[in-house]
Amino acid sequence: MARLVECIPNFSCSKEKDEATYNALVETAKSVPGCTLFDAQTDGNHNRCVFTLIGSPEAIEEVAFQLTKVATERIDMNHHKGEHKRMGATDVIPLVPQSKDVTVEECVEMSKRLGQRIWDELKVPSFLYEDSATRPERRNLATCRKGEFEGMPEKLLQPDWAPDFGERKIHPTAGIVAIGARMPLVAFNVNLATSDVEIAKKIAKVIRGSSGGFRSCKAMGFMMEDRGIAQVSMNMVNYEDTPLYVAYEMIKALAERYGTYVLDSEIVGLTPAKAMIDCAEFYLKARDFDCHNQIMEYHLLDMQG
Amino acid sequence: MARLVECIPNFSCSKEKDEATYNALVETAKSVPGCTLFDAQTDGNHNRCVFTLIGSPEAIEEVAFQLTKVATERIDMNHHKGEHKRMGATDVIPLVPQSKDVTVEECVEMSKRLGQRIWDELKVPSFLYEDSATRPERRNLATCRKGEFEGMPEKLLQPDWAPDFGERKIHPTAGIVAIGARMPLVAFNVNLATSDVEIAKKIAKVIRGSSGGFRSCKAMGFMMEDRGIAQVSMNMVNYEDTPLYVAYEMIKALAERYGTYVLDSEIVGLTPAKAMIDCAEFYLKARDFDCHNQIMEYHLLDMQG
Repeated sequence: MARLVECIPNFSCSKEKDEATYNALVETAKSVPGCTLFDAQTDGNHNRCVFTLIGSPEAIEEVAFQLTKVATERIDMNHHKGEHKRMGATDVIPLVPQSKDVTVEECVEMSKRLGQRIWDELKVPSFLYEDSATRPERRNLATCRKGEFEGMPEKLLQPDWAPDFGERKIHPTAGIVAIGARMPLVAFNVNLATSDVEIAKKIAKVIRGSSGGFRSCKAMGFMMEDRGIAQVSMNMVNYEDTPLYVAYEMIKALAERYGTYVLDSEIVGLTPAKAMIDCAEFYLKARDFDCHNQIMEYHLLDMQG
Repeated sequence: MARLVECIPNFSCSKEKDEATYNALVETAKSVPGCTLFDAQTDGNHNRCVFTLIGSPEAIEEVAFQLTKVATERIDMNHHKGEHKRMGATDVIPLVPQSKDVTVEECVEMSKRLGQRIWDELKVPSFLYEDSATRPERRNLATCRKGEFEGMPEKLLQPDWAPDFGERKIHPTAGIVAIGARMPLVAFNVNLATSDVEIAKKIAKVIRGSSGGFRSCKAMGFMMEDRGIAQVSMNMVNYEDTPLYVAYEMIKALAERYGTYVLDSEIVGLTPAKAMIDCAEFYLKARDFDCHNQIMEYHLLDMQG
């Protein structure tokens, strides 16, 4: 199988506000052999664009650097306005293993080499976040980004907030970047047969890791206005650590305890096949199932790799 | 995505009994660009070998013909002995769609072109079976093969048994071949918490298509001597027609009716990811899930194709 890493860099630039820079980033994303620009999204209100790149670890490491170089040269954060929180021209570089023989640990090593190179060659400092984090409070991107570009010069002088790479001051125009490895994330929402949003909020509190629930589950309770029902909205940040069926079964039990039931669920966007296949294995009680050897598509990927 | 068809031709030849012919077949299997010899199994007792090839529809059609040519030239069925039932040097050529954009119908067309060419160029007649069958009783390979090589000359003279391609007489040394398209088959066994094999047999009878159950489910009740439990052993011949969870849930209900329950299950060998993902979708009640667009691996296959 081809060894594959996904990179989803976010830049403080939009096609709507600065088409030339956006195009330069797209061109750069397409210029490195061994990786593919899978998707490019731009949002004028956020004044931000998000690329999805997939390729070999080596190609991804190279394209992430080259993109950061272009963003550093072309984007001036002193003039950036947008609804989305941001702290740098290249705001965040997530690295995600996407084939069975690439580990999160390998992506952590990539993030560290990238941070070093971005400092050495571009003089842009960085925080390591998620699984690359060097201290617990840096796992969370929002915590790293708090204060945004404008507040960073002061934040970097605080005892706990020296960058992981670089000096205690931002790049004058490109700010600072967060780089981190993580497992593929599955956005998984479970809808309840009730209009009482408090039930969804209570359930979310029980199941999310931050309040004592499942370690790799982030959850919030919402009202879905269009359907008039309450929803437990989750980010499953490591589906091997906390499988989807574990969260689902717990929600089912808690819904019953509050006098309601699960109406249906939603998988939002992309998911690795294994996050779903693990559920089939659980519900069918499949004994000794060897996902990587028994699923045809993994062999097809092997053949083509 | 690469358009992929799987072909699993069976030849009346084994490495153990005729290594030169076996090697010639392996060489031929590897000689056609655009397809890969994924697996080659040989059985001396059966005096038979089974190849698994995956490639583009065009490459698979070509390699299937070239293999049949070699088998026709080198194997004399008048001297073939083996435990497995057989009617030809090339005994059977199954064609299976293995990517989302290849249909069974397309494989049916392939099987017909192959049958015509094998008759035109090699003078080997053929039956079309499974989804390629031209009459209901020919769907079943065992029915087509009944009488084997030795009984075929007489069988072909019966009113109902003219070959689909070729005249009413076998090739003098290569016999006759069955060619057919089918969906990928999933071997799925469900184990019961009972040593009473009669319960497994009763359940099998209810769920299998041939006795009024699910159309694309073949089922038998067995005793698993090593574990001392009864098993419902199934071939799911079209997992979109009869999904795995449908068979599983029905077995669960019937087991309860007979005072027992499902202990566990087994998926034997390869399965397409979708057969499992459809189960996850069912058990998680996933609303509007679009398997081909939301599963990362399908996109990875697209990218590499």
